[in-house]
Amino acid sequence: MNIPVIQLPSPKDTGTTSVFTALARRKTTREIGNRPLSIQDLSNLLWAACGVNRPVGPYGMPGRTAASASNSQEIELYVALESGVYLYDPLNNRLDPVLAQDLRAGALSPGQRNVTPKAPVQLIFVADLNRLTHAAEFLEPAFLELDVQKSYYYVDTGLIAGNVYLFAAAQGLVAWFHGCHRTDLARRLELRAEQRVLFAQSVGYPDGPTE
Amino acid sequence: MNIPVIQLPSPKDTGTTSVFTALARRKTTREIGNRPLSIQDLSNLLWAACGVNRPVGPYGMPGRTAASASNSQEIELYVALESGVYLYDPLNNRLDPVLAQDLRAGALSPGQRNVTPKAPVQLIFVADLNRLTHAAEFLEPAFLELDVQKSYYYVDTGLIAGNVYLFAAAQGLVAWFHGCHRTDLARRLELRAEQRVLFAQSVGYPDGPTE
Repeated sequence: MNIPVIQLPSPKDTGTTSVFTALARRKTTREIGNRPLSIQDLSNLLWAACGVNRPVGPYGMPGRTAASASNSQEIELYVALESGVYLYDPLNNRLDPVLAQDLRAGALSPGQRNVTPKAPVQLIFVADLNRLTHAAEFLEPAFLELDVQKSYYYVDTGLIAGNVYLFAAAQGLVAWFHGCHRTDLARRLELRAEQRVLFAQSVGYPDGPTE
Repeated sequence: MNIPVIQLPSPKDTGTTSVFTALARRKTTREIGNRPLSIQDLSNLLWAACGVNRPVGPYGMPGRTAASASNSQEIELYVALESGVYLYDPLNNRLDPVLAQDLRAGALSPGQRNVTPKAPVQLIFVADLNRLTHAAEFLEPAFLELDVQKSYYYVDTGLIAGNVYLFAAAQGLVAWFHGCHRTDLARRLELRAEQRVLFAQSVGYPDGPTE
């Protein structure tokens, strides 16, 4: 891989916007400017999405800002930047390189091609079914049922995406959760058979002059 | 129906907890005390979950604190209190009575019976497929596909549940998202054929002495 690991700075509390105010501002914005996020904003964004917020959560695993079914943490965030696609490693707070290509435009679904994909960050939500299967071994037989698996990984995707929306609303960023080219992305990212590309979320600063 | 409509007071910003702090505190707590929420806290909670935060959102519909697929707003919250079960009406900020029975314990799945269900509020997430079908008429053929419908209504459930988790973390409440007796609840709530019971979320004050 000819792009380096990105070690993120520790998440840093830079905002004072209350949860209530962020909820009042929460909305979807498809028009996102191309201004890149600072490395600190990127770190904060990913931590808000599904970062580690306590060393020990349910079932002995680290706790995360977003809940997941039996703390399976089966949703991984692939982060598409201009420089390439990275896998977010929440435990080590870093971005591991996956592909040295700009896939940000490619992640959008055909139905959304009327949007100019300028957002500096696209989060790609990928489920790792093995983590749910592993949980099933000692916890819940229901995990083995395909439909139940789906219900878990889609809800868990929403829990992460919701954090992103509120963080964006609090920080003056804008966000848009949308579909993506599932099979195409799975092939380009060389995903394993047990991984599923689900959705994507574009994040950045508002397009045009700042209000 | 022998229980009255509950007109909720307007949501009121009572907290100053920042989004960052709420994310740092976010966790699942299964042990929830039986102390009821004040009517103001209940109003704030439901508004945080999926209330109206602007008169006009995407596609001309009111905007909500939680995103939904093409703003379909297909997830409805049934609210199980001690006095009965109500349907949250976000537009009119009120609870419409559905059933004069305490179903809070009944909403829990068999696998969760080791938890004493004392929480004063249980939110029951119900999808109305007609709203997705309606959206399909003028928007997205994909809505007609069952699998795609599922992906939308489960993600949209997670978006609401995530708001509840962060609101709880900000307000000193605790929350737990969990499975529920889907068919039993559908029967008791006399749901229509196009409605699907999905999950539930218990909310209340921490059990035991306040920290």
